[in-house]
Amino acid sequence: MTQQLLGTLWGVGVGPGDPELITVKAARLLAQSPVVAFPAGRGGHPGIAQKIIADRLRPEQIQLPLYFPYVQATADLAAAWVTAAETVWQPLMQGQDVVFATEGDASFYSTFTYLSQTLQRLHPEVRVETVAGVCSPLAAAAVLGHPLTILQQRLMVLPALYAIADLEAALDQADVVVLMKVASVYAEVWPILERRHLLDHSAVVVRASQETERVYPTLTEHPTLELPYFSVLIIHCR
Amino acid sequence: MTQQLLGTLWGVGVGPGDPELITVKAARLLAQSPVVAFPAGRGGHPGIAQKIIADRLRPEQIQLPLYFPYVQATADLAAAWVTAAETVWQPLMQGQDVVFATEGDASFYSTFTYLSQTLQRLHPEVRVETVAGVCSPLAAAAVLGHPLTILQQRLMVLPALYAIADLEAALDQADVVVLMKVASVYAEVWPILERRHLLDHSAVVVRASQETERVYPTLTEHPTLELPYFSVLIIHCR
Repeated sequence: MTQQLLGTLWGVGVGPGDPELITVKAARLLAQSPVVAFPAGRGGHPGIAQKIIADRLRPEQIQLPLYFPYVQATADLAAAWVTAAETVWQPLMQGQDVVFATEGDASFYSTFTYLSQTLQRLHPEVRVETVAGVCSPLAAAAVLGHPLTILQQRLMVLPALYAIADLEAALDQADVVVLMKVASVYAEVWPILERRHLLDHSAVVVRASQETERVYPTLTEHPTLELPYFSVLIIHCR
Repeated sequence: MTQQLLGTLWGVGVGPGDPELITVKAARLLAQSPVVAFPAGRGGHPGIAQKIIADRLRPEQIQLPLYFPYVQATADLAAAWVTAAETVWQPLMQGQDVVFATEGDASFYSTFTYLSQTLQRLHPEVRVETVAGVCSPLAAAAVLGHPLTILQQRLMVLPALYAIADLEAALDQADVVVLMKVASVYAEVWPILERRHLLDHSAVVVRASQETERVYPTLTEHPTLELPYFSVLIIHCR
């Protein structure tokens, strides 16, 4: 009986930033759901997903900003995930659906994973559905007007905190390499690209498709760059 | 003067199959464009992109099915691309916009690349814009209810005609490996996954999000599989 009364947690990718790059399905679920959750912003600013969906929210919908600290400390993070999971569990156990809006795609380096996995551990009876969205490397490629991959090209994606050794191996092995959240390692990456004569085949896109988007179509002139967190570097090795 | 009269070619990813997984931007462009092009189907059947957008097309819009043969022979392919490019050039040179609808994303192993590159070679003055869409590996991960990548995981994507040596290297190097269009090599891939004890961490999704979707959440029981062209294999190596 309780099973039938539970709401469903929908993890919905809302795309890279342009509110029009949300899917029709995400827009419908956002319009229908009594409760909408999203990662809380910082310092009084709305979060990225929250900005993307702002114009779709209605006053009668319950909004749940969830706090996910940007920290490495696993205990703090785990505690935040438990709090977030219990927050969305309240409406779910009362039979209300919850849409969790997450920037980009919901399965690709997404906050949604931690929320859903924590919730499933605490409340295994919960129902979870995932709705795919446009991820930032695809948006960056579209902005550059250059295909990400064609034909037999092998693609390697390295996330934020990769080791530089991983980059060398990826450049040896793949035809196209994407570095997510490249800001913190850009100064180390540039000399490697220079040595391999790849600066002309490398581009950085900052906040692809967002209003504050910036594009560096080649990196030859940019040994250093002040980059925000959401910056993607695309290298066409061959 | 001619410059201002040209239409724009829009390469629009219409997502993996579910017509609701199209972006709001793609839906708007499809609704507005006087001319809509797409890869022609085979054997009297509509193509995938054509099926995805079927309910959005209006009788007064000009529809241009473009023929792209599934052949390796470069000369035949190149001739087909030239014909396709000249077909969309006719309305463009008369100042009409053309939306080219392509399944998945428009920059990710997409037919759109060949169309736009051929057109830009023949008519360098053409204006081209790309609109990102949801690609099939993200749709497959959503269907499986398992994240594609988290934390520091390195992702490798290998396209259709990869060599088996590439797969071994990818499994050594990446944490998550995606094999696109795996049908033709599945029988060779399975023993490698078995030897590496990865069958339980591997899944196949056929036509993710389409009506005829099929899911194999583990591969232990499936040393052989009859798979159609659009089948994705996801391996979580670690």
